[in-house]
Amino acid sequence: MSETGTEKSVVVDRDGTVAIVRLNRPDRLNAFTTEMCHRLLEVFDELDADDDVRAIVLTGTGRAFCAGADLGAGGDTFVLDDDPHTGGAPADTGGLVSLRIFRSTKPVIAAINGPAAGVGVTMTLPADIRIASDTAKFGFVFARRGLVPEACSTWFLPRVVGISTAVEWTVGGKMVPADEALARGLVRELVPADRVLDRALEVARELVSGTAPVSVALTRQLMWRMLGASGPEVAHRAESIGIYVRGTSDDVREGVEAFLEKREPQFPNRISDGLPDLFG
Amino acid sequence: MSETGTEKSVVVDRDGTVAIVRLNRPDRLNAFTTEMCHRLLEVFDELDADDDVRAIVLTGTGRAFCAGADLGAGGDTFVLDDDPHTGGAPADTGGLVSLRIFRSTKPVIAAINGPAAGVGVTMTLPADIRIASDTAKFGFVFARRGLVPEACSTWFLPRVVGISTAVEWTVGGKMVPADEALARGLVRELVPADRVLDRALEVARELVSGTAPVSVALTRQLMWRMLGASGPEVAHRAESIGIYVRGTSDDVREGVEAFLEKREPQFPNRISDGLPDLFG
Amino acid sequence: MSETGTEKSVVVDRDGTVAIVRLNRPDRLNAFTTEMCHRLLEVFDELDADDDVRAIVLTGTGRAFCAGADLGAGGDTFVLDDDPHTGGAPADTGGLVSLRIFRSTKPVIAAINGPAAGVGVTMTLPADIRIASDTAKFGFVFARRGLVPEACSTWFLPRVVGISTAVEWTVGGKMVPADEALARGLVRELVPADRVLDRALEVARELVSGTAPVSVALTRQLMWRMLGASGPEVAHRAESIGIYVRGTSDDVREGVEAFLEKREPQFPNRISDGLPDLFG
Repeated sequence: MSETGTEKSVVVDRDGTVAIVRLNRPDRLNAFTTEMCHRLLEVFDELDADDDVRAIVLTGTGRAFCAGADLGAGGDTFVLDDDPHTGGAPADTGGLVSLRIFRSTKPVIAAINGPAAGVGVTMTLPADIRIASDTAKFGFVFARRGLVPEACSTWFLPRVVGISTAVEWTVGGKMVPADEALARGLVRELVPADRVLDRALEVARELVSGTAPVSVALTRQLMWRMLGASGPEVAHRAESIGIYVRGTSDDVREGVEAFLEKREPQFPNRISDGLPDLFG
Repeated sequence: MSETGTEKSVVVDRDGTVAIVRLNRPDRLNAFTTEMCHRLLEVFDELDADDDVRAIVLTGTGRAFCAGADLGAGGDTFVLDDDPHTGGAPADTGGLVSLRIFRSTKPVIAAINGPAAGVGVTMTLPADIRIASDTAKFGFVFARRGLVPEACSTWFLPRVVGISTAVEWTVGGKMVPADEALARGLVRELVPADRVLDRALEVARELVSGTAPVSVALTRQLMWRMLGASGPEVAHRAESIGIYVRGTSDDVREGVEAFLEKREPQFPNRISDGLPDLFG
Repeated sequence: MSETGTEKSVVVDRDGTVAIVRLNRPDRLNAFTTEMCHRLLEVFDELDADDDVRAIVLTGTGRAFCAGADLGAGGDTFVLDDDPHTGGAPADTGGLVSLRIFRSTKPVIAAINGPAAGVGVTMTLPADIRIASDTAKFGFVFARRGLVPEACSTWFLPRVVGISTAVEWTVGGKMVPADEALARGLVRELVPADRVLDRALEVARELVSGTAPVSVALTRQLMWRMLGASGPEVAHRAESIGIYVRGTSDDVREGVEAFLEKREPQFPNRISDGLPDLFG
């Protein structure tokens, strides 16, 4: 791995074709700040543009994943400036991160190495897979602070764990232990804390092995967007465009021929050359 | 507990901050009538307006939870008068109850003390948690009577138990035994019949303990409404307003300061003072 | 059983009130062609119109269920002609089949007797129940061929197995073994290969026993359509019409009276006489 940033709230490492995005304020248990939000948005833009990156692992430096919003300003923490454009509510920063992960062209694996509370857990909901430490805890604590859930979690959480569990955890302001998170489907697997990152890297590598990067990007985009679509007819239109456009691609020629010749495909198409618009 | 109504089709008791709403026609296995519908709508309005109530338990008097629509009129039971306003189909009464529970500002726990059939089970689907007797049965019997599912169950049921189970139970007109209801996720837990109400009260008390009533109301509203939203962007807008409005509230100041001082918060805001509109 | 077609890509048998639709290109592992698509659309139209058919079992001849798109044209397989009407992307043929099954007025059980890959698995997602051989494999292989998922699977799959599993399987281009398919909820049960069809017939017969055909058709339509609806209010409108229209039917009179008289109902209404429009 080569360190590509230090002294920053978010640092990016590489492990082969997998990028490791690390929340990096270990002295504050990686508490979330506006600066961290903007840095995450930048980082996901950079990784989307980099064809050498096939998958992204999101984790935290030190013993915590993320303790939630930095409460350094105490009771004034959530007194927000009006949005300069609208004069009303500014965009929730956690939501900006979630929407960015939602739109990622690369699969995202959350490697939850320790406690995750508030935005620290809700920002992981648009990740494709969550792997956690068997000692992690997940704090849906908003109602205990007088707040409401954010980072688009009111949309993502019921779709990940079901409405009943989602309401129970958030209305109850719960700290959810690791085994309950596993049983209810929040995380896919639990491993010892010192194995979380390695296991996430392993899963990430296996996930993208042998697949076409453009197909992965389009597939991820289709699945997440159709999760909110009004009916299968919407998917039918988008997929019909996808099959039609991809059908003439060098990727498909290679994919089908490699399959028929029983060899590993070498896909030539690159995400950086642009993705077709399936939703136009 | 203090009895606040008798001889009514629905009675309301209190156990501390938890209201117990009881379907109360035990000689008819609490069969559902239009009168019961209107009484339930009134009761939920009253409980929403009462800040002393933090959670609602819905149960039945006697050995049944609710046997479904009262079939006292025999084969004419479902011959309905035209809607006086539109001249067409009148609003399904079970649906009116379900929509009212869906909009409740307090969490709702269904304590299913015995058999629940037809509207007797479908009206519980917008409850946040279902706790049932280990001898309860759940009858999705509409197709065996020539009817169709109601009480908005065609929207709620696939979201609670998945589409495959929802179709299997309703197309099949099934009587679902307690253990299958647990395995498929319809109910959260099973207890002996004489423990159902106590257990539901315990769960209700724990659910709201330490949380801000206004946060609970907004959280419940967000989660259930976003269950039908077209994408995370919709949640982002509503949550951004929620964080912005609540950020300057006395509740959040108290919630954050109590957390930092490691003491129990005392939230001053009241639902009866009005809830912000997050969806405007 | 009586054979009603041979030498065709799709054949239809009968077993009492259950129709058996069989993908029938065993020498090609029942690989999917445009001809097979059109034949399936015809067959589902015929079965919808036939009141003697109460349920449909979809299976494959020979050792495979369906190997996916026929790759006889090699790397040119997915080079599609422009749609003659729009000049753009033609309708995905797998999607046409999925949408037709989605609209079926009879419940559909997929009897997955062997490997199912590509459209071979995605076309089964609008079936109500999937029963599979314990040696079946499910190949969501699109990203390994440079393609994208089709047959409306980007809408159906996350609703059947959850978004996390849906992304993992499709982004990863996975061949999913039978036990994982069972654990993640893709299939309802596994049986030995030589028991798959018999078990599916058993489930189909039990599913429709004692129910009104028109109620089954409307219930299936409601459940699947409400899976994409924006809120319970949409279901409330459709169900209110359903209860109102059905309430005066001979079916409901018979259903309620038979129930009160503790006898088996004999429902007179027929699907071929037309279904009420609940969504107008």
